[in-house]
Amino acid sequence: MRDIFHEELDEINQSLISLGKLTQTALDSATHALLTADLALAEKVIADDDKIDDAQHLLDAKTIDLMARQQPVANDLRALVTSLRMSADLERMGDMAHHVAKLARMRYPATAVPPELLLTVQEMGRVASKIVGKAIDLIASRDTEAAKVLEKDDDEMDILHRKLFATLLDDNWAHGIETAIDMTLIGRYYERFADHAVSIARRIYFLVEGEYYSDQK
Amino acid sequence: MRDIFHEELDEINQSLISLGKLTQTALDSATHALLTADLALAEKVIADDDKIDDAQHLLDAKTIDLMARQQPVANDLRALVTSLRMSADLERMGDMAHHVAKLARMRYPATAVPPELLLTVQEMGRVASKIVGKAIDLIASRDTEAAKVLEKDDDEMDILHRKLFATLLDDNWAHGIETAIDMTLIGRYYERFADHAVSIARRIYFLVEGEYYSDQK
Repeated sequence: MRDIFHEELDEINQSLISLGKLTQTALDSATHALLTADLALAEKVIADDDKIDDAQHLLDAKTIDLMARQQPVANDLRALVTSLRMSADLERMGDMAHHVAKLARMRYPATAVPPELLLTVQEMGRVASKIVGKAIDLIASRDTEAAKVLEKDDDEMDILHRKLFATLLDDNWAHGIETAIDMTLIGRYYERFADHAVSIARRIYFLVEGEYYSDQK
Repeated sequence: MRDIFHEELDEINQSLISLGKLTQTALDSATHALLTADLALAEKVIADDDKIDDAQHLLDAKTIDLMARQQPVANDLRALVTSLRMSADLERMGDMAHHVAKLARMRYPATAVPPELLLTVQEMGRVASKIVGKAIDLIASRDTEAAKVLEKDDDEMDILHRKLFATLLDDNWAHGIETAIDMTLIGRYYERFADHAVSIARRIYFLVEGEYYSDQK
């Protein structure tokens, strides 16, 4: 039987996983709202961002309370500090989904994304969702080999981000400055979402191995 | 005479202030490099970002070590958790200065900022530098009245950010898509830099008062 501290640490990990799932749902919905000009769905993502923030505050309060009551040292303390950092990553990922949804709402009833970028943005959404899904799994598994794979998944996001810029800078771009600004920001939101998910993988790798993955960019 | 714990906490605060000054210097240099196409200065900011990252890692290691050795509870524990969060804000602010410097380098020998945006970007740099300067002062003073003022300073940044977009969307904009993309990203970097400085003010307010400033956006 596990001791009280590790039972409570497991609960914190479960809460982190729940928070991760909330951000993944928010991102998936925001992507769908953006690509299909679905105002109701965009509004839902915007309204639900408070739930993500509240879940993070509650989780951090539990984590700090566990620190104060159980006075962990060494790896147990580092696990709780890492939990605080991962919850901050997840909260920020929720903000990125919120930003995507706000842009969908701002351009409604038009679709914010022009036809030649629909597939690129859809792919950015798919890759970002895949990366956060894997990051959530890592919180439970602490599988450091799987953690390294997220760096490769992030390369896919970089390629899509460059493809987006190439489309904006193509001589055939016919959607003007405003849409170019929108797409620049959208690209940044997906990239940052994925960056934070990769941060979670790196934090787990460091927690388990005590060093950073050497091929890390 | 203060006890060992509070002496070490003072040292951590001093390190946070030093880290804050590094990020302020990085931002000021990056702004100057951006506005004057100063390649050597841009290169210096880019190279110095590792020093900011190293300073943050060292500071966080000291903070976690103090947690483990002294087993603080209540407000002392919260002060250390807040220190970890503020160091993360400052490290990210260093990244924003780094991004500005990289754009200055990418467009060299041209000046990345077109003439009609020079003053707006200069002002964004001035306001961001003012806000981080005040945030650094707050780390020492813990003056909650002064902390509230940073929200107002951030309103200045929002106005400049809107002014930047208005210039990009003006019919007279003659610098094409690439420069519009550059300026969209530059605007975002300054805005995020200021957001993190305001976060530091909010964290200090919360640490001292035990609640969030009620007029907070």
